[in-house]
Amino acid sequence: MTIGDIVARRDRLFGKGTPLFYETPVHLVRGEGPWLFAADGRRYLDMYNNIPVVGHCNPRVVAALAEQAATHSTHSRYLDTRILDYAERLLALHADEITQVVFACTGTEANEIAMQMAQMATGGRGFICTDAAYHGNSSLVGQLTHAPHRGRTDVHAIPFPDAYRPVEAGLSADALGERYLAEVRAAIDDFAAAGTPLAGILLCSILANEGLPDIPAGFMGRAAAMVREAGGVVILDEVQAGFCRTGSWWGYQVTDVVPDIVTMGKPMGNGYPLSACAGRADLIGVFRERTGYFNTFSSTPVHAAVGMAVIDELEDRGLAAQAADVGEYLRSALREIATTCEPMGDVRGHGLFVGIDWVVDRDGREPDVAGAARVANALKDRGFLVSNAGAYDNLVKIRPPLVFERRHADRFLEAFAETVAAVHA
Amino acid sequence: MTIGDIVARRDRLFGKGTPLFYETPVHLVRGEGPWLFAADGRRYLDMYNNIPVVGHCNPRVVAALAEQAATHSTHSRYLDTRILDYAERLLALHADEITQVVFACTGTEANEIAMQMAQMATGGRGFICTDAAYHGNSSLVGQLTHAPHRGRTDVHAIPFPDAYRPVEAGLSADALGERYLAEVRAAIDDFAAAGTPLAGILLCSILANEGLPDIPAGFMGRAAAMVREAGGVVILDEVQAGFCRTGSWWGYQVTDVVPDIVTMGKPMGNGYPLSACAGRADLIGVFRERTGYFNTFSSTPVHAAVGMAVIDELEDRGLAAQAADVGEYLRSALREIATTCEPMGDVRGHGLFVGIDWVVDRDGREPDVAGAARVANALKDRGFLVSNAGAYDNLVKIRPPLVFERRHADRFLEAFAETVAAVHA
Repeated sequence: MTIGDIVARRDRLFGKGTPLFYETPVHLVRGEGPWLFAADGRRYLDMYNNIPVVGHCNPRVVAALAEQAATHSTHSRYLDTRILDYAERLLALHADEITQVVFACTGTEANEIAMQMAQMATGGRGFICTDAAYHGNSSLVGQLTHAPHRGRTDVHAIPFPDAYRPVEAGLSADALGERYLAEVRAAIDDFAAAGTPLAGILLCSILANEGLPDIPAGFMGRAAAMVREAGGVVILDEVQAGFCRTGSWWGYQVTDVVPDIVTMGKPMGNGYPLSACAGRADLIGVFRERTGYFNTFSSTPVHAAVGMAVIDELEDRGLAAQAADVGEYLRSALREIATTCEPMGDVRGHGLFVGIDWVVDRDGREPDVAGAARVANALKDRGFLVSNAGAYDNLVKIRPPLVFERRHADRFLEAFAETVAAVHA
Repeated sequence: MTIGDIVARRDRLFGKGTPLFYETPVHLVRGEGPWLFAADGRRYLDMYNNIPVVGHCNPRVVAALAEQAATHSTHSRYLDTRILDYAERLLALHADEITQVVFACTGTEANEIAMQMAQMATGGRGFICTDAAYHGNSSLVGQLTHAPHRGRTDVHAIPFPDAYRPVEAGLSADALGERYLAEVRAAIDDFAAAGTPLAGILLCSILANEGLPDIPAGFMGRAAAMVREAGGVVILDEVQAGFCRTGSWWGYQVTDVVPDIVTMGKPMGNGYPLSACAGRADLIGVFRERTGYFNTFSSTPVHAAVGMAVIDELEDRGLAAQAADVGEYLRSALREIATTCEPMGDVRGHGLFVGIDWVVDRDGREPDVAGAARVANALKDRGFLVSNAGAYDNLVKIRPPLVFERRHADRFLEAFAETVAAVHA
């Protein structure tokens, strides 16, 4: 069966429009550490997937999953102490203000809970997000996707703070920060003028989908303070940033802000559907009391066993420090390559989350979407999986499992240098 | 640590209001087949949980899960053939009209997709549900919960069809069916009069949360036809009814109706978070095209391996036939007990889904919530797990894993007879 045959069968069973990566998609059959293996025997170095944070098919996580699934897995209307041990351990990794948690299965569900919680706690309905946000696909959370084009009165999308392609040219770093904070202020004022009570702000702590911009110093903390002062709740989405990706446990430690509510997902169970919405006890309390929320598959002993094994691996293998080190190593080497590669307009990111802003030319900084896609496809053909993403789809997005080491980076850097030489010859 | 200590710790970490079963909750540590084992060494016969449909910790399902999780589990932006094999097998179990599927993780997600799909396919927003529906907890799906008290203009809750406690007394069976169909007609007309375009109807195929009422013959099929004629989509929720629970593969086979869209969840992965929204290709097509829907943890090879193992077990062990047989055996024996037990107003259900309608007296049929709860708690103390549920919370709900056999039923029936004798002495 050819790749084309599989795609046709998939279209027939799933419907057309089901997203796939690459011009010619990859048919995978096995994973191990940072490696993925295709049906045709080819091996790929995975530099994209953050879900298998402690490596594809991590033996310790799989063993914990298999053992617990074979022993006991009922829902949370019965008592279980493993999930309480896990909740305690997870909360201890967070800021002191974050003291209670609601477990769920997907990032969408975690953000649904967070938004409902903010609505209930404030009595408000107005949400502030950025104009390139993605936080999930339910009806409520999906209102924040492509928000500027939806014309909703209860969502206000601010231009995301960005030092590389600023909303206004010629400003100093400080003035640019103020400029973006004025957007938050305007959103709050607009809601007030329209009589739309504010529920809160929901941001990815490192603005991952926006394209990992360098956020003006102090922006996040001051934006949070403004929202709180206006009676809103500060929700930070750690679905992409969390679990040591940035070199710290949470992205909000990097961007220096403490949330009222924090949501977690993707890497949390290394592939097992596990997510969470944690927050201040008063906020979680209102939600629990008002909803009696129950999720069939969450807060189970399996959730606990898998989640605990992921934290164990991250801690015992020192993967936060490794992410910081290898990420910086990668960025530094990529910046060196950029000195002779015009389209690499900017190399940025945090820890093992690296973006290369692909541009038509250095001065104009016009996003080169086709160029970024060409690089991603060419790297795939050489055995390295990356993607193009970000607000303009022109960011070459590098986000490997955290077991990715300097030796893997070296392989990649060699292939990358050859690729850009070939693509831009 | 006492039960009280665990509850206090749970309240501290999860917040108060997190639901628990029984006056004194059960602390479980192990499951096997239809049995659950508590931390104090006590053994319980599980007569409530439909998630572990092929038995708690089913070895075949756990082995499939462990093997696939150890081999390969990436998301659906890469090609995988196992999930296509599973999709094909699942769709073959459905009515011919149901030809495509969207996988997700939870029942809420499946119903979110279904409702969004109906909105997109029709351009409508009005949904008809029953006045005792529960289909999930997202903002959109949650609109159908307690719908009569929400005052929404885009949701119309009809009285659920019920032969035992009919909305109007003294009608013949045929006339009662017409009476309930008139409610569907009124909902459609009300939407039309208000200028609210119809999206569709969403019903559990056997009205499980409503309390498993005896639905007037022909009601479901004719209600579906009326909705279609008015331009709406017919969504049936099989999250509780599906996967052989009723003695048939799907509840809609029992209530004799074919949906345009069908949602599945709970038992689908025997505990692994796996759900689906399947439907006509034109409906799935609109949704795929408009949304590019992607779910991080769904449509994975692990979803396929687990889902396939569940179908294998259900088929190889003949559990549909067993559910039909043991369920009928249970109902028949319970009806015998009811002849001398006044509060057992009605014994009804399908397959291994049995409800006992607990009443203050036979003539008035007034729901006895406290009585039903007392029976559930007393049975728990004797080692049998049931619950009280339904539209009035007075239904003693019996819904064991389908590996539940006649010998288990005999144990239960003996304990049940003793319990009602003691409780109602």
